[in-house]
Amino acid sequence: MTNQAPALTRKELFLRAARCEPVPRLPVWMMRQAGRYLPEYREIRAKHSFLEVCKTPDLAVEVSLQPFRRLGVDAIIIFSDILIPAEAMGLPLELGDAGPNLPEPVRTEADVKKLRIFDPEVETGFLMEALRRTVKQAGADVPVLGFAASPWTLACYMVEGRTKEGFATVKEFLYREPKIFRELLHKIAEATILYLKGQIAAGVSAVQLFDTWCGELDLQDYTEFVLPAVQEIIAGLGGTVPVIYYTKASHHLLPAIVRAGANVLSVDWRIPLAKVRELAGPRVAVQGNLDPAVLFAPPEKIRQATLEIAAELGGRGHILNLGHGILQQTLVEHAQLFIHTGQQAALAEAQPAGKSRS
Amino acid sequence: MTNQAPALTRKELFLRAARCEPVPRLPVWMMRQAGRYLPEYREIRAKHSFLEVCKTPDLAVEVSLQPFRRLGVDAIIIFSDILIPAEAMGLPLELGDAGPNLPEPVRTEADVKKLRIFDPEVETGFLMEALRRTVKQAGADVPVLGFAASPWTLACYMVEGRTKEGFATVKEFLYREPKIFRELLHKIAEATILYLKGQIAAGVSAVQLFDTWCGELDLQDYTEFVLPAVQEIIAGLGGTVPVIYYTKASHHLLPAIVRAGANVLSVDWRIPLAKVRELAGPRVAVQGNLDPAVLFAPPEKIRQATLEIAAELGGRGHILNLGHGILQQTLVEHAQLFIHTGQQAALAEAQPAGKSRS
Repeated sequence: MTNQAPALTRKELFLRAARCEPVPRLPVWMMRQAGRYLPEYREIRAKHSFLEVCKTPDLAVEVSLQPFRRLGVDAIIIFSDILIPAEAMGLPLELGDAGPNLPEPVRTEADVKKLRIFDPEVETGFLMEALRRTVKQAGADVPVLGFAASPWTLACYMVEGRTKEGFATVKEFLYREPKIFRELLHKIAEATILYLKGQIAAGVSAVQLFDTWCGELDLQDYTEFVLPAVQEIIAGLGGTVPVIYYTKASHHLLPAIVRAGANVLSVDWRIPLAKVRELAGPRVAVQGNLDPAVLFAPPEKIRQATLEIAAELGGRGHILNLGHGILQQTLVEHAQLFIHTGQQAALAEAQPAGKSRS
Repeated sequence: MTNQAPALTRKELFLRAARCEPVPRLPVWMMRQAGRYLPEYREIRAKHSFLEVCKTPDLAVEVSLQPFRRLGVDAIIIFSDILIPAEAMGLPLELGDAGPNLPEPVRTEADVKKLRIFDPEVETGFLMEALRRTVKQAGADVPVLGFAASPWTLACYMVEGRTKEGFATVKEFLYREPKIFRELLHKIAEATILYLKGQIAAGVSAVQLFDTWCGELDLQDYTEFVLPAVQEIIAGLGGTVPVIYYTKASHHLLPAIVRAGANVLSVDWRIPLAKVRELAGPRVAVQGNLDPAVLFAPPEKIRQATLEIAAELGGRGHILNLGHGILQQTLVEHAQLFIHTGQQAALAEAQPAGKSRS
């Protein structure tokens, strides 16, 4: 049993887990942890639009820190949106209640050529400033995470604009003009490297790539189009901080995903963590994977499901998280139960000399 | 090469494929083939609401036959909606442009108890009448297909009502009251058996179960809750006609899905057909699986992708279809190209004595 307070700081804990080194307990955080389930977040959003919060460092810092103060999570992810770089690349952006809209979508070679590789300090200075302040306020002991969309997921929004019905528009582009579509992905990758390097310079301890829509593709198209652009980003960052690659509904893509070069693979509840370990090997950490809907279950079920997941890798190379963003109607107490249960879970491999179980 | 006209009727062809018997060519149809991509369908829908078409046999027969007349598909699926039985079980139903809505959702044990096992000839007589007329008009040579939702997928709509955000409401029910939730699935299964038996009595050649939302569950919950209810339906139909079980985004569930007892497993483009054959064995037919978004690609890509899929099982035990419903903006000529290419594809096992390649 290792239920005593950890001797490591949260940042050491997080980085050790990301490097598959032994840890006394699991680091735990939640995707979309700065969000509408928190009353203090809703209070700010009652007065400011989503984009306003993203673009006002004071507000972005405040909402980024809220889940840390309230729940004691082990990592603070910066409050922002994956579509911010789309705007910085030159596309007008609306983030309304009906979901995001890009009223001038990318549909032609000329549209791709017009996209700008942007200077993150110039075009997204608000984020870099919010990051620096968040890192400072979090202090040396708490890791702050940066993030970006994967090129495919950003391309989905850029090309579809709004609807995404069957992802027909973005796939039509891919099939009609595979070469230009690859250029689009490559251009997004280039911009994303600079964007994430900016975040790293601002002090983040790790970055996460969100590939929310990769699961719409079959293994062949994913491997041919998406994977190289993800690999390009991860290679381009040069290993300065751990890269977490999140993929949703990606069970059929796993054989390719493990080749992305990510330090941490973040998956949803459809994929057993042990399956990722088996395919990715013991040097790749795994993040996940409680179904956010389980936080709507009775407390005993939340506890039990969290402990099962915490035990799945014996504690080695595992960052505990949800399988997708926390849902708006989640009770704060249930989120808290997840975090605390995960942080207190006894680990088979909590001792430095422990052997991998899987 | 077996490009000559088939000696078998479409119905024989379809049933032989469903039973994994040798065929001279693949039978081909499309999910949602009676739909908005057809101008003649839009013409009728300009004058009648979706539910009105479902509930008026003259109109339902007409739109069911449209894709057969226009495209020469090898099976006619009756025009209806998977939510019709929810209404027949006692839940008010609205099918508006914003998607379906069940304003009195099922949330408690009392709600489950109130649901009625209905007499299909009384509560859904319009469908039975539409089926009899469609079967008559189609003639002895063309198979007509009936269908229903799987219990889980219908339960998602019944419990969620409208939103389905993260499927949190239906999963909350499942985790909070697993026993009552099982009763709900069992009750839907019971009603569905009668509903499909009514369709079989009306003359359909096969029935399809649509499990659009099974992919939201992990393998454990699917196996524990959903699979038994699907097995109950398939067993309850007693093998009178082939049962096709369609599952979407279900790669992670395949080891359980193959145990459903279905004669035909219908999957989307995320699952290679050969993988289904490998897991299900040579006695289970496979239906699928062109990504409907591929119909937005240039004709050469449609042809090539269709031929690749047609070749994947060598022609044995394969009903060619899309991986999900045809999309509204699809060009009719592109749908036609898919159907004709599939029907004309040369098959490695077109000879009766052919051996399975996979």
